[in-house]
Amino acid sequence: MFKELKREAYEANVALPRHGLINLTFGNASAIDRPRGVFAIKPSGVDYSALTPEDMVVVDLEGRRVEGRLNPSSDTPTHRRLFLAFPDIGGVVHTHSSHATAFAQAGRPIPIFGTTHADYFNGAVLVTRKMRPEEIASAYEWETGNVIVERLQNLDPADCPGVLVNRHAPFTWGPTVAKAVETAVAMECVADMALMSLALAPDLGPIEPELLAKHFKRKHGAGAYYGQA
Amino acid sequence: MFKELKREAYEANVALPRHGLINLTFGNASAIDRPRGVFAIKPSGVDYSALTPEDMVVVDLEGRRVEGRLNPSSDTPTHRRLFLAFPDIGGVVHTHSSHATAFAQAGRPIPIFGTTHADYFNGAVLVTRKMRPEEIASAYEWETGNVIVERLQNLDPADCPGVLVNRHAPFTWGPTVAKAVETAVAMECVADMALMSLALAPDLGPIEPELLAKHFKRKHGAGAYYGQA
Amino acid sequence: MFKELKREAYEANVALPRHGLINLTFGNASAIDRPRGVFAIKPSGVDYSALTPEDMVVVDLEGRRVEGRLNPSSDTPTHRRLFLAFPDIGGVVHTHSSHATAFAQAGRPIPIFGTTHADYFNGAVLVTRKMRPEEIASAYEWETGNVIVERLQNLDPADCPGVLVNRHAPFTWGPTVAKAVETAVAMECVADMALMSLALAPDLGPIEPELLAKHFKRKHGAGAYYGQA
Amino acid sequence: MFKELKREAYEANVALPRHGLINLTFGNASAIDRPRGVFAIKPSGVDYSALTPEDMVVVDLEGRRVEGRLNPSSDTPTHRRLFLAFPDIGGVVHTHSSHATAFAQAGRPIPIFGTTHADYFNGAVLVTRKMRPEEIASAYEWETGNVIVERLQNLDPADCPGVLVNRHAPFTWGPTVAKAVETAVAMECVADMALMSLALAPDLGPIEPELLAKHFKRKHGAGAYYGQA
Repeated sequence: MFKELKREAYEANVALPRHGLINLTFGNASAIDRPRGVFAIKPSGVDYSALTPEDMVVVDLEGRRVEGRLNPSSDTPTHRRLFLAFPDIGGVVHTHSSHATAFAQAGRPIPIFGTTHADYFNGAVLVTRKMRPEEIASAYEWETGNVIVERLQNLDPADCPGVLVNRHAPFTWGPTVAKAVETAVAMECVADMALMSLALAPDLGPIEPELLAKHFKRKHGAGAYYGQA
Repeated sequence: MFKELKREAYEANVALPRHGLINLTFGNASAIDRPRGVFAIKPSGVDYSALTPEDMVVVDLEGRRVEGRLNPSSDTPTHRRLFLAFPDIGGVVHTHSSHATAFAQAGRPIPIFGTTHADYFNGAVLVTRKMRPEEIASAYEWETGNVIVERLQNLDPADCPGVLVNRHAPFTWGPTVAKAVETAVAMECVADMALMSLALAPDLGPIEPELLAKHFKRKHGAGAYYGQA
Repeated sequence: MFKELKREAYEANVALPRHGLINLTFGNASAIDRPRGVFAIKPSGVDYSALTPEDMVVVDLEGRRVEGRLNPSSDTPTHRRLFLAFPDIGGVVHTHSSHATAFAQAGRPIPIFGTTHADYFNGAVLVTRKMRPEEIASAYEWETGNVIVERLQNLDPADCPGVLVNRHAPFTWGPTVAKAVETAVAMECVADMALMSLALAPDLGPIEPELLAKHFKRKHGAGAYYGQA
Repeated sequence: MFKELKREAYEANVALPRHGLINLTFGNASAIDRPRGVFAIKPSGVDYSALTPEDMVVVDLEGRRVEGRLNPSSDTPTHRRLFLAFPDIGGVVHTHSSHATAFAQAGRPIPIFGTTHADYFNGAVLVTRKMRPEEIASAYEWETGNVIVERLQNLDPADCPGVLVNRHAPFTWGPTVAKAVETAVAMECVADMALMSLALAPDLGPIEPELLAKHFKRKHGAGAYYGQA
């Protein structure tokens, strides 16, 4: 049925521990098939080392399980919310990668201090507002998606392909789930470097706008010239 | 005799260096067979790479060696004390994992700053009081167990599945020794992230109680909905 | 054609992730054949795990592709600028290694605090001035080379085999590209140790000149006595 | 000739990068045969991955090469000085392990903050005084041994099995070179944890003397009860 989609989601999920972004069973990745209106996601609480492509759970955009024996990730409603809000994305990744999560816990954006960051994000990595008790008490994971969407209001999800959920951890997205994994790796890396830059220069300001634009546009948009063709 | 029990303890012990929680011969894990009143534990000072399931030492709850040629871990009386005090636990783990140990050495609890922490602990990771000279001079390892039990007084060991021994290092426990290993991994991870969060926000307060309750209960108790079945 | 040169560049490029200096597709290494006036460099945006010696792109000192199907690294003009300015170097390496990049982002030189640093650099690792908007807007990568050359003015590139580009990341060079890789490893290592030394002693001054000279000269110049032959 | 001695030194040397204590060709280990008055040491500047037992260089206590084609480590006179001053040691290890080196560069002892440290050292890890210009200009590596011996004056090398050379890096020793490697691993580990403990508690005092004595004596001396037999 959804063999290719499940393989794509599987490859993204197992890439997460390989990149050192995941401990234990934290985190999950999903890939969407837009024409069919379904996405494949990691099953809940399954160890990455035991995961197979067949274990992926296929869910539709109303949240119904369409294929798979296992329960989908408990974070499935967050993924679903993002797929509904951002029509151009093809994949979503959630990790608890340690440096990015440290910023999320502290409720601080990751400042944009250099070109590594500018290669991936067109500005700081933003933090959502804290969730309200009633949001936590009701459809918690769906509301997690809502605070992300609220934070992205008036922003282009392609300029800002990830966010920190306050007190929680990062989410990233992209045209494909493989690209969302790459962005999750980059976010963890720039969070690490930002922490050290702050230790060296506590009042460090952001990268100059010309340099930011140059690097972001080397890799994104019509004038991109990084990579092959 | 105790083949299954020894294998269970063995698997937990060798998981510790694999998770990066152990250097050299530091640390140990034990699994209990409640009906038979015995637990299997790592032998003292043996290198993890040379360990076999047969090397595990089986000890009864009076502290007598029941099976095994080697000396049990010098920390055996601490494990025994915990098995006696907490009747619902099935395993105990002791590591010197670096970030958690840094908090233990500083005598500071690991504050609960985010959902990663709340997935495992229903509050901060507590620190024991310092041990008194007479406790150190007498049955030191048994008394180490006593200060842990004292620190847990009026708390549910399931809400608080680990503690930092002041000036020393962490101990964790759980329904199985495999779960105690998982909690040791999580404690090291949240200690790492807490240190970085404190660097970013020195006056950071704890996670909001609603969010703590939500995450702890997603994984624990009657309403848990994380994982399979 | 340039089989040996391409192999040399290839070996240097794949050494970068093996030494932990590279995430994703960041960074690149190049080796020059001075008599023939060409250098081999990594193709742009290709994953290190998929790289082969044949993928290396051969470029001449006017910047024309001489051999290879793929686009050369977008940083090729920076490498070319350095090969033109420093006639004695045989290779150039660019990484975003995290600790060195943290200093680059903060715009701070890496102070020379110990003998590990003095084994490789005859002083602090310097930082370029920030690039001007018009430099960024025009031939950005060539101008990146220019600010490096400007920073090295009146210095011997053999005494100072690497630099931090402000807001960006490190570049290193050497008599061979293999030696430039070694210097990149050493720079990352001393950046890491310098950060920790600053945490322990925020006002720490540089190593004493006699000790610096002793260590640098143990490994460099006529009186060198480190190593074989 | 010295086949066993060379194998012992070889095993210790290759253990250093395996434990993450060594980058590039930094560091070296040596083992002594007291009855024959010779020690085997790593050759200078040879990559660890290419090292064989036959490459080890055998040197006598007057510093003459007795066996081996290669030049011995440039640090050989330091090892020789320590073997002469401390008649009970069987091996010496020198690394540039990053956390211990950070303390050495800062000129600060590693404070004894916990039991992990007390399992290996009977107090803080001390730092030598800075070397004088004339010591650096003359027999530098021999004089490096001299400042270590001076720092150990009136101390038992068994209580204090390692030291930080100011501005340089750690040296450790022990009854065997394998034990000196273990102590080098432990020193790096406690340096890492001490740095973090200082971040959490900048004014943290040393471990209480009773707890220090208990842990050091669990592993050392007549009353030791850690390990087998």
